[in-house]
Amino acid sequence: MAVLTSRATDFPRWYQDVLAKAELADNGPVRGTMVIRPYGYAIWERMQADVDARIKAAGAVNAYFPLFIPESYLRREAEHVEGFSPELAVVTIGGGKELEEPVVVRPTSETIIGEYLAKWTQSYRDLPLLLNQWANVVRWELRPRLFLRSSEFLWQEGHTAHVDEAEAAAYARRIALEVYRDFLTDVLAIPVFIGTKTRKERFAGATNTMTCEGMMGDGKALQMATSHELGQNFARAFDIDFLGADGAKHLAWTTSWGSSTRMVGGLIMAHGDDNGLRIPPRLAPTQVVVLPVRDDETVVAKAREIAAALTDAGLRVQVDARSGLSFGRRVTDAEIKGIPVRVEVGPRDLAAGNVTLVRRDTSVKAAVPLAEAAARVPALLDEVQAGLHAEALALRESRTADVTTVADAAAAAQTGFARIPWRLVGEEGEARLAEDALTVRCLQTPDGEIPPAGGDPDDLICLIARSY
Amino acid sequence: MAVLTSRATDFPRWYQDVLAKAELADNGPVRGTMVIRPYGYAIWERMQADVDARIKAAGAVNAYFPLFIPESYLRREAEHVEGFSPELAVVTIGGGKELEEPVVVRPTSETIIGEYLAKWTQSYRDLPLLLNQWANVVRWELRPRLFLRSSEFLWQEGHTAHVDEAEAAAYARRIALEVYRDFLTDVLAIPVFIGTKTRKERFAGATNTMTCEGMMGDGKALQMATSHELGQNFARAFDIDFLGADGAKHLAWTTSWGSSTRMVGGLIMAHGDDNGLRIPPRLAPTQVVVLPVRDDETVVAKAREIAAALTDAGLRVQVDARSGLSFGRRVTDAEIKGIPVRVEVGPRDLAAGNVTLVRRDTSVKAAVPLAEAAARVPALLDEVQAGLHAEALALRESRTADVTTVADAAAAAQTGFARIPWRLVGEEGEARLAEDALTVRCLQTPDGEIPPAGGDPDDLICLIARSY
Repeated sequence: MAVLTSRATDFPRWYQDVLAKAELADNGPVRGTMVIRPYGYAIWERMQADVDARIKAAGAVNAYFPLFIPESYLRREAEHVEGFSPELAVVTIGGGKELEEPVVVRPTSETIIGEYLAKWTQSYRDLPLLLNQWANVVRWELRPRLFLRSSEFLWQEGHTAHVDEAEAAAYARRIALEVYRDFLTDVLAIPVFIGTKTRKERFAGATNTMTCEGMMGDGKALQMATSHELGQNFARAFDIDFLGADGAKHLAWTTSWGSSTRMVGGLIMAHGDDNGLRIPPRLAPTQVVVLPVRDDETVVAKAREIAAALTDAGLRVQVDARSGLSFGRRVTDAEIKGIPVRVEVGPRDLAAGNVTLVRRDTSVKAAVPLAEAAARVPALLDEVQAGLHAEALALRESRTADVTTVADAAAAAQTGFARIPWRLVGEEGEARLAEDALTVRCLQTPDGEIPPAGGDPDDLICLIARSY
Repeated sequence: MAVLTSRATDFPRWYQDVLAKAELADNGPVRGTMVIRPYGYAIWERMQADVDARIKAAGAVNAYFPLFIPESYLRREAEHVEGFSPELAVVTIGGGKELEEPVVVRPTSETIIGEYLAKWTQSYRDLPLLLNQWANVVRWELRPRLFLRSSEFLWQEGHTAHVDEAEAAAYARRIALEVYRDFLTDVLAIPVFIGTKTRKERFAGATNTMTCEGMMGDGKALQMATSHELGQNFARAFDIDFLGADGAKHLAWTTSWGSSTRMVGGLIMAHGDDNGLRIPPRLAPTQVVVLPVRDDETVVAKAREIAAALTDAGLRVQVDARSGLSFGRRVTDAEIKGIPVRVEVGPRDLAAGNVTLVRRDTSVKAAVPLAEAAARVPALLDEVQAGLHAEALALRESRTADVTTVADAAAAAQTGFARIPWRLVGEEGEARLAEDALTVRCLQTPDGEIPPAGGDPDDLICLIARSY
């Protein structure tokens, strides 16, 4: 009997099965909350470390702002409060007493960080101010799904202030490309469509939202990270102004951008197969698992020796020699957990001076001489990394249809993405698609780039899909 | 005019001045909450990385549990709910609706993690289960002080389950010693008294609390980290049981342990002087700042060259060549921020082939040949690390008095710690001391070790102090 529901049978149930069997996450006791189990958290920690390094390379620094926001702050930006009000968790009792002003648990931090950007911005010399925080946020969810849509999730949120619109726009775009797109593509091995959101899909309070959209194994879209130009909306609401080089007061231009534990859900759905997770080697907490085929002293010792050599080569390695579990069970477990490469060490192979290397992505096995194993694995990991990306790209290409009518777009979006000139859709077409629960995922130039500022929308194409 | 209030004049005001001038933290808009500014957060990130590595070396793995806990969970352990009830923040509205069961914002996670320890513990083979999480927690504070006592703070909390009492006790002790004491001593350079809390001072729900107590610059004590044996209290409340090797059901034994952003406050108060912070080099986000004395192209270029050589030597280095600020202002800033070593690069020194190295802890300056600078700095950093520890230890020794009566203890505790046999104090003496706002910080063996399990309390000595 298969351990997991097959994806073709029931994709959502397959997803739940993977979460449970790979021990990634569990439901929390309060509806919509999530327990991230150690293996799921190890994946998130690896994502964090890589994204954090990219954010720092882009010049931003980490800070931490309070979880609790005065309710009045949210009301200062009209669209923002309208967008987030239905999802708020509100603290009304503190220290045993009814609070005079109820306090909101942050759904995002533009407002509270805006207050401090204002405080710390006096002169143009203080700008740009480039901040990021790693934090939990709360958005009450009626239809929660672990990692994809939970009432509490973990994320990073960047918030920056700039002297003018062009600099703010360039920075938001830089984050979208150099942090998010590059991380998603090069580390998560998920090809993404980049572009801007339509007015309807924009972040509440933004003047422009850039997005990275991935295709999941069932052809649906997942918004994996977004970067927003906020214009002067929050600068106006929170008095983020500065004395310019010209001696006059100016309002700053701000941006915000975020990526979250939702990416773990994207990882599962973009690469997983009927045997479980498939984690790209650059991300994988464990890149190689060494499995002694038998519970035999010589075999286990040899397995540990190989693992030590691989660790010395700079790889993340585990030996799974659990004595209570058969070899078959341990193989299944390594597959469910998506460990990119297995090194199987058996007495017969050893007698011939070999071990067996197995790729998780293709299940291809190869016997290699013991002495060469450590040298061969790094190249194999590179092949798995490239293989997963190629496979995801091939799926996306096979499921993206160029169409010329909204009706054809709606049909194509039943199984994947529809690509169509925006002028053939427009806000009216977008409203019609919404009736079928379809959305415009992004607008982009015909060659797949983020639209330039001030360009003609009629020159753009858009991607339409069902989405998570 | 001095930039900071002197410590002798007004220690609490000096502390506030350091927080503001070193740009470490700011008050949040909701009473008692805290904004951790980039420099304060960089210090916390360095603490996190080191403590996290020690926790992992002790075999625990990271996970993440929800912020929101059903109110009913807290009531399951009687002492626990009694201890935390007065400090709770309660969410009563979610998604625009009154909640059926109010939800508590976690003040600590024994209850919610207990629920999952129970779920994941079936057999003795599943134990020990060694978990840790990095998270924010909320405890409503009436007298908040940044880093020391804030309504929201950041911490790690470890939670483990074991097959028997001895193993649980040994693990809690291992964490107290190998994670907390070693980190505080070897990295933060703060000597700590270790020992157990009296019954009165124990964590709510614990059977034994081990603590690391540091002495601050004003002679007061700061509890810097604690590790608790929880006996079977939470195992009973949350049904954490397992099938033993004997085939029978047994209740597990659990522990919990934590350290928080409070350590940043301890760092400031243990090492700071009238010129600002003094950060031990092993912790410092910036270990060396290179300061060109003049805004002169050759001098600045040479400064950058030296910085590059120091960076190549594996040090964390910054060049402060801000053109708007005089050399004196930049020196003051480096002092306030507590950067362990300055390299001052001036035209006169350069003409003689030298640069000037300045230690932050002693202000001692030395001209060294340019070619030797990069080689000399690592040893100098080691000296600063050792010097700060020695100075803190000397202060503690000069301010710890051996006494033999409760009255003398109360007198000595006005300026530091009083050490006295516990049998001369007892719970009655402890109650009398409490009237003067003095507490027994810990019980320890006469040679300064954590008391052995089951030892005679009459053999122990205790340390009495005012505390934060």
